[in-house]
Amino acid sequence: MNAFLKLSLGTAALLAVGFQACKPKNTSSAVSGDAAVKAYVPPGKYDEFYNFVSGGFSGQLSVYGLPSGRLFRVIPVFSVDPEKGWGYSEETKPMLMTSHGFIPWDDLHHTELSQTNGEIDGRWVFGNANNTPRVARVDLKTFRTAEIIELPNSAGNHSSPFITENTEYVVAGTRFSVPVDYANGDVPISTYKENFKGTISFISVGKEDGKMDIAFQLLLPGVNFDLSHAGKGPSHGWFFFSCYNSEQANTLLEVNASQKDKDFILAVNWKKAEEYLKAGKGKKEKVRYARNTWDESTHTGKHEILEEVTVLDGVALKDICYLIPCPKSPHGCDVDPTGEYIVGSGKLAALIPVFSYTKMQKAIAAKAFEGEYEGIPVIKYEEALHGEVQKPGLGPLHTEFDGKGNAYTSFFVSSEIVKWNIKDLKVLDRAPTFYSIGHLSIPGGDSKKPSPKYVVGYNKITKDRYLPTGPELAQSAQIYDISGDKMQLINDFPTIGEPHYAQSAPAELISKNSVKIFKIEENNHPYVAKGEKESKVVREGNKVHVYITAIRSHFSPDNIEGVKVGDEVYFHVTNLEQDWDVPHGFAVKGANNGELLVMPGETQTLKWVPEKTGIFPIYCTDFCSALHQEMSGYVRVSPKGSTVPLTFSLGKNSSDAKSKENNSNGH
Amino acid sequence: MNAFLKLSLGTAALLAVGFQACKPKNTSSAVSGDAAVKAYVPPGKYDEFYNFVSGGFSGQLSVYGLPSGRLFRVIPVFSVDPEKGWGYSEETKPMLMTSHGFIPWDDLHHTELSQTNGEIDGRWVFGNANNTPRVARVDLKTFRTAEIIELPNSAGNHSSPFITENTEYVVAGTRFSVPVDYANGDVPISTYKENFKGTISFISVGKEDGKMDIAFQLLLPGVNFDLSHAGKGPSHGWFFFSCYNSEQANTLLEVNASQKDKDFILAVNWKKAEEYLKAGKGKKEKVRYARNTWDESTHTGKHEILEEVTVLDGVALKDICYLIPCPKSPHGCDVDPTGEYIVGSGKLAALIPVFSYTKMQKAIAAKAFEGEYEGIPVIKYEEALHGEVQKPGLGPLHTEFDGKGNAYTSFFVSSEIVKWNIKDLKVLDRAPTFYSIGHLSIPGGDSKKPSPKYVVGYNKITKDRYLPTGPELAQSAQIYDISGDKMQLINDFPTIGEPHYAQSAPAELISKNSVKIFKIEENNHPYVAKGEKESKVVREGNKVHVYITAIRSHFSPDNIEGVKVGDEVYFHVTNLEQDWDVPHGFAVKGANNGELLVMPGETQTLKWVPEKTGIFPIYCTDFCSALHQEMSGYVRVSPKGSTVPLTFSLGKNSSDAKSKENNSNGH
Repeated sequence: MNAFLKLSLGTAALLAVGFQACKPKNTSSAVSGDAAVKAYVPPGKYDEFYNFVSGGFSGQLSVYGLPSGRLFRVIPVFSVDPEKGWGYSEETKPMLMTSHGFIPWDDLHHTELSQTNGEIDGRWVFGNANNTPRVARVDLKTFRTAEIIELPNSAGNHSSPFITENTEYVVAGTRFSVPVDYANGDVPISTYKENFKGTISFISVGKEDGKMDIAFQLLLPGVNFDLSHAGKGPSHGWFFFSCYNSEQANTLLEVNASQKDKDFILAVNWKKAEEYLKAGKGKKEKVRYARNTWDESTHTGKHEILEEVTVLDGVALKDICYLIPCPKSPHGCDVDPTGEYIVGSGKLAALIPVFSYTKMQKAIAAKAFEGEYEGIPVIKYEEALHGEVQKPGLGPLHTEFDGKGNAYTSFFVSSEIVKWNIKDLKVLDRAPTFYSIGHLSIPGGDSKKPSPKYVVGYNKITKDRYLPTGPELAQSAQIYDISGDKMQLINDFPTIGEPHYAQSAPAELISKNSVKIFKIEENNHPYVAKGEKESKVVREGNKVHVYITAIRSHFSPDNIEGVKVGDEVYFHVTNLEQDWDVPHGFAVKGANNGELLVMPGETQTLKWVPEKTGIFPIYCTDFCSALHQEMSGYVRVSPKGSTVPLTFSLGKNSSDAKSKENNSNGH
Repeated sequence: MNAFLKLSLGTAALLAVGFQACKPKNTSSAVSGDAAVKAYVPPGKYDEFYNFVSGGFSGQLSVYGLPSGRLFRVIPVFSVDPEKGWGYSEETKPMLMTSHGFIPWDDLHHTELSQTNGEIDGRWVFGNANNTPRVARVDLKTFRTAEIIELPNSAGNHSSPFITENTEYVVAGTRFSVPVDYANGDVPISTYKENFKGTISFISVGKEDGKMDIAFQLLLPGVNFDLSHAGKGPSHGWFFFSCYNSEQANTLLEVNASQKDKDFILAVNWKKAEEYLKAGKGKKEKVRYARNTWDESTHTGKHEILEEVTVLDGVALKDICYLIPCPKSPHGCDVDPTGEYIVGSGKLAALIPVFSYTKMQKAIAAKAFEGEYEGIPVIKYEEALHGEVQKPGLGPLHTEFDGKGNAYTSFFVSSEIVKWNIKDLKVLDRAPTFYSIGHLSIPGGDSKKPSPKYVVGYNKITKDRYLPTGPELAQSAQIYDISGDKMQLINDFPTIGEPHYAQSAPAELISKNSVKIFKIEENNHPYVAKGEKESKVVREGNKVHVYITAIRSHFSPDNIEGVKVGDEVYFHVTNLEQDWDVPHGFAVKGANNGELLVMPGETQTLKWVPEKTGIFPIYCTDFCSALHQEMSGYVRVSPKGSTVPLTFSLGKNSSDAKSKENNSNGH
């Protein structure tokens, strides 16, 4: 065993101790008497907050209620979803296209609600794809993914999708540096220092329509950008990024990227970058990346490949970037509601440094630098420091704010949430978490105006918190009431996927805008049938287009003949309902493309390539009425070259249907 | 508008009234003071019951806790699942294969827990695929799908997967009759009466290993089999199936299958069928169907195609099948704990008939038949009837039992649960549901020994029960305490997918057997690396096999070079951890096959076909330690025909790595 591996085992031992140490003998002793009443939302009553929770390795985004912890919806974003049809219908497939082709599954780490004047405005929630770098925008009127943009010159899109105070930009920083796409990437991994680059993308967001464009990318040295937050108020115009692996290691990072006592927070003056951009200092580089846009008038996603991006050199172009030393392997990088304080959480550090925006500005003006790192000025630690929280706990990760001058930091190793005062840096309270908390979230807790009723901890280890389900366990979250001086644990709830960052918004801000149906008269899908009279089956070569309608409790048509082996059959299912919560589903036996779920007023398409002759049932998969079981039909598939004519019908008796065989149109 | 459509609109209007009528002005008024305490499970405490809930159109099966309503796990069964890797790893892909090829998404309607002596034994839970007919068996030691068997000669596998009292058989009846696979299926749909057949499959279940085989299929007239339950105690040896569409309609079933005042319950004497089978009366028919089996020693699914099934003619072979008239379009078909009473719920009926097994036997002995239907004797209604529950509600669907002589029936149209006495058929209590309940479930409620603490209603309409999430809403369940004389609503919880049937088991019965890890020494995967020393990269033509290990917090190897465009790279990831709840994930940028999640001691494989040159990061997607962010690596992809040698390494510094380029093995 070499020295590296010994070090590694030492760390593992530390973590093992961390897990054990925080487990009280009687876990329920932490719960006081009125917790049930505080956490319980009686049947028929609403939760106070929407909680938008990243799904981690599931690639989706989940919506829970607070304080009940009930799961209202998994919003499909970067992964296919057989519960919704996302990635299965012909309309949704384009949304998961990338420059690498169709990607069925990604890893979504952070949610960020759009803001106006630094306050949550309830319009959109953004999410990042960590593996194949992308940013998604979800429309909170429909709770659907409205747009996904890919990021060229990028890998491990972890430092994302954080926003500026008027949602001018969403940012996306590379956790894994790689050769840029427009360079020769076929280089030895050992040439990391020369060839690997970090980039940060500034994605502009359309003020009205939310449309995303990569305004510019900053080209930076090869390090690992981890997390970020924008300045606000006085610090609006700046963005702050934690970065680790300033050692520039390319293997066994566990050891090799944990050598230095301090890594950095990168402060980016994006207003300055905008000036350079205007002055034509950006280089237009040839790259390939996808932008996929959902059109709610056709209920269809459009996939396009873009071929150019503007790159600004963050090192050569002076006064954009500055580094602030930060102990050790910083993870969370959080800005308080006033915009004055920047908290860096070094996951291997024994203290929390709090930086002052005012002091940082003075240091820059005074050129109080300790030197340069890869060409970027490094501000002297003490010159930017407001102060340090001493002995806060082990393994600080993330900090949120209550807007009353207090910060709440999660500690992975000591497994607790610690409340401390931003001004005097004194620890005020600590509450154990079960077990090993990662992110935490206060409603509005990264905005100018938090709603400090609850803090939710998203734990990384579940173990014995719930009835066991074999080797694979749900993750676990915990809700603490923070309306008093002390945190009070009131509820545990299991979570789907693996939550990383989450954000919450007061219910009313979003519920008032929620769309209930899609108006059938506004449906511009090219294959819509706006009533049963428009339902039909049309053959174009080997393509058969079925314009089929669904309404309680039948399809029109429900008998189809004349389909042949080798045909491509497109079932364009229009749900004619105009009532809330009356979706219809659609399935055909043996279909390799899945099924459909179609919301009221919407058209969705299932492609089916029958490979056998016979009779194939179709039916509604979403229970819709007392006669739902009767909502079915049949498709006859004949051999290639068969002369059975194409016919379709609804409600005709069998003798009519028989005579139909002599006609080309049985409707 | 023709008469059919008018009828149809009349039904729709009835349903609309049904939805409205049951909505109280103040929904929370139904909740009394101690509900919070009854429903609340404090942090750190366990739920009393596991609730296994079908996922409907999601194709999966969910595990909730009662009374908290918390979601512990979605068990992937018939659909791919990006949260678990089901259907993405090379090992799990075979589990979703069918005679139609790979099916990514199906529709799971009913869960059934295995029984011994008519009591839930906690070993397995079965589920049915409704669209492409299959039955799955889930192992409750691991909470994983252990086996899936396809059903030939079948469509709309709705009347499934109900079991006999010692799990001798799982049955599967066709909701949609179709021509059998071994006949010419290319026939006009209008020849339904001649050519379309119903079948019921009796799948034997291995007593020790649970292995499923189709023992025989019953060939029956073309009708729609809807639901079923086995006899028990005195009626063990019989199976009961509801069937609708005795009109044998093939179009607009909403109207055409609702013509007759009575349809049927089919009583099957399966012991008699076994005798015929032994006597060689079965016909061996050539068909094709899949059986997929999960092997926990290799962590791999095996897909095989079987080519023969034994068919018994349920009409020609006398004394197997009898029909009992049942009003109107019967849906649920439920047998009480004593095995004496069979409840048929006609969804369009205004009463509930309860049949007596003893009377049915007497009627058969006395040949008290009113005639035949398609060659099957029809017992006189009055001769089999125990009695009718009068004015119970509108739209009865399903009945469960408390073992204390009471039945609980769900009513879709009048949106309520009604409790009534089995002997005297008097209504004892009724509770509103929000809204339009489908199935309901009492722990052990279809077994000989119910645990009558709760009844859970699975509602079909959600509307305003929770904060809105756009046009698409979660389904909603409700928990009622039934420990007293009157039902008490204590909790609402949203559910994932669309629950149809669900079953619950006391926690201890299952939790005591739950597997926590897979032992690495028992891992017989052909590409396992049982320690870092065994990790390696091997080229076989254009196939590159990466034997890669994962342990907190690094992969071995984590730097790989010599991969070329056009290669098929197989990352065989072995998780070396032997601690509960320490999974690792695996992702590589741009992979079109998804990602991996690997439980402790397990090996799973991601196939990756790189289509571009460059440097591709790999990383762990499941947060595993304080140094999880460091658990990453790089793969270099060179052009086709490149001479860069295949090398791999861990922890070497860059100068070592450079020199490595001259070797064929860098480890």
